[in-house]
Amino acid sequence: MTAEAIQVGDPVSAVATPALVLDLDALERNIQKMADFAGNHGMRLRPHAKTHKSGHVAALQRAAGAVGVCVQKLSEAEALAAAGVDDIYISNEIVDPRKLTRMAALAQRVTLAIAVDSRLGIDRLAAAVREAGAQLDVFVEIDVGQGRCGVAATEAGALAHLVASHPGLRFAGLQAYHGKAQHLRSVAEREVAIHHAVTVARTAQAAVTASGLNCPLVTGAGTGSFALETASGLYGELQAGSYVFMDRDYADNEPQRGVPVFEHALFVKSQVISRGLSHAVVDAGHKAHAIDSGLPRVWGRDLEFANGGDEHGILRARGDTLPELGDTVWLVPGHCDPTVNLHDRYVVVRGGLEQGVVAHLWPVHARGCLI
Amino acid sequence: MTAEAIQVGDPVSAVATPALVLDLDALERNIQKMADFAGNHGMRLRPHAKTHKSGHVAALQRAAGAVGVCVQKLSEAEALAAAGVDDIYISNEIVDPRKLTRMAALAQRVTLAIAVDSRLGIDRLAAAVREAGAQLDVFVEIDVGQGRCGVAATEAGALAHLVASHPGLRFAGLQAYHGKAQHLRSVAEREVAIHHAVTVARTAQAAVTASGLNCPLVTGAGTGSFALETASGLYGELQAGSYVFMDRDYADNEPQRGVPVFEHALFVKSQVISRGLSHAVVDAGHKAHAIDSGLPRVWGRDLEFANGGDEHGILRARGDTLPELGDTVWLVPGHCDPTVNLHDRYVVVRGGLEQGVVAHLWPVHARGCLI
Repeated sequence: MTAEAIQVGDPVSAVATPALVLDLDALERNIQKMADFAGNHGMRLRPHAKTHKSGHVAALQRAAGAVGVCVQKLSEAEALAAAGVDDIYISNEIVDPRKLTRMAALAQRVTLAIAVDSRLGIDRLAAAVREAGAQLDVFVEIDVGQGRCGVAATEAGALAHLVASHPGLRFAGLQAYHGKAQHLRSVAEREVAIHHAVTVARTAQAAVTASGLNCPLVTGAGTGSFALETASGLYGELQAGSYVFMDRDYADNEPQRGVPVFEHALFVKSQVISRGLSHAVVDAGHKAHAIDSGLPRVWGRDLEFANGGDEHGILRARGDTLPELGDTVWLVPGHCDPTVNLHDRYVVVRGGLEQGVVAHLWPVHARGCLI
Repeated sequence: MTAEAIQVGDPVSAVATPALVLDLDALERNIQKMADFAGNHGMRLRPHAKTHKSGHVAALQRAAGAVGVCVQKLSEAEALAAAGVDDIYISNEIVDPRKLTRMAALAQRVTLAIAVDSRLGIDRLAAAVREAGAQLDVFVEIDVGQGRCGVAATEAGALAHLVASHPGLRFAGLQAYHGKAQHLRSVAEREVAIHHAVTVARTAQAAVTASGLNCPLVTGAGTGSFALETASGLYGELQAGSYVFMDRDYADNEPQRGVPVFEHALFVKSQVISRGLSHAVVDAGHKAHAIDSGLPRVWGRDLEFANGGDEHGILRARGDTLPELGDTVWLVPGHCDPTVNLHDRYVVVRGGLEQGVVAHLWPVHARGCLI
């Protein structure tokens, strides 16, 4: 992308659109709130960096007490390690031997852990780690209701034993994340889903201990449910990530009593480039914000946002009248993680969206890290 | 993204997943087919580079007779100009004075054109061009049924006159693209939509000529409808872009008799990383392929693909049995343009997906160009 001539200290009004704008004041409050929650409940916090993909945000989380970060992909781990993150858990499966060789090399530079859910995956991992002379924490992933990766609870003991049988691999516990539960709208639905997850995880833990192994940790939870995993008494580590930015989708969840409420900290700044009688068109389409969890919400104005394709969003009047040609419109993304992936950098602002100034320009270190 | 150690000459089987793989043989056949169609019908061809975002693909199109490319954003124009493309039409509106200053600077290095649909936009454009001492072709965009940018046909004459009144701006004709028509499934529906577009464009052309100006060109059309605009006798230039790659969505359209059929040339290579009894999980989710036009199709196997989130796709058996852990699975993206935007490069192969070799590694020059 051609560099844009924005500088630290410039007013936010000078930022060309569309741009990914991070409200640093709100970000810091969100990070502190979650750190306080984890601290007050004796939970380890290992935020998922798939949300922010940024060594800078990871450093703020670490400074507030996080033990490290989670990622989903090897190349994310490599990119964040290069950006200074030194404790990374790949909460996902890798079965490609060449990737596992790369991972074993990375394990010699940073503290690394990984999830497994197959004998083949464990054997290949062990071979790569042995070859490199590395050391690795390994979590056995169980399917707690997501219906994606992970084995059945009853298989956890056998896989844990296979892990523990390999020198260089340490059985570190159970990966028990219920992604679908995060987006159930009502507290009651989320309670049912996490009750199920806890039941499955408890069964898996029993299978591990019955087989004579210790189960050091159950790790999981997301922004929509972390208080429920915390209350279970079973989980020891929270992986919530989206709380740092809070997208429209999470904000649409019914809040749970007594659980911290996080602020929107991430926005797409857009501009009206066409104005008809019935609608206005902004220069941010789904190339500027992800739509997998629905469309963005217009921030601070009661306007309908309709999908206008890769490069356009279409606004229609609701409670508020339409903005004029050239006006700035702020969007709250439907889903932060893949929205961040569409941008090369964060424009980080102090003092709010309208009157603030650019405090930092942060690269999205792990943008595009698919492998 | 951390560099992956793939080299030209390597077998496709060595390409780590997920990867954006371009079948160069199919691409060349698609490019030639569309060039032949345009040539045989006396149409100018200005393919939309929003599909491929690549100076390399643009060069192949140009060598086959294309007059230049379209883009949607200034930064795309800048990136493709830096990659050697010398004739670029920004088929979209820009109203930010700072962007217009950048654009006027670019107009001194390459042949540049732009679309307008407002008096404010024209006045600001004229000021930037005057300041730079540049020269620019300007198309007045009319809304031919898309309901997005563009003025009503009856306003086209007044805007064309305003354009022509400014030294440095040349009124080059009408931008008359009907995006929604491209994705209507039946030929009959597309015929109705393009008949409407042609009627509106004819009215606008009449408004321009009645006001005493010549209307040099009507430009528009996409991969779903280009034969209809061609048959109208009104359009002189085709902007189709997706024909180079052919995504799942376009392939789902009912084909029109006598119109070239294009091949799938773009794929996402993925790998099974988890295998349950009822499903397999591949390492390509909607961070590796866009889902705005629906999910990808599994290529060459009758399997159901379900969305598994940012990093996962979930396969279920249909006519074919499930692939095994570690197997390669090829995906045909639902929509090529935003899929390409998710990747840093094309792995360009000769000799097919299964047995081929890597012929080139092409950067996606205009990836992430939002501004």
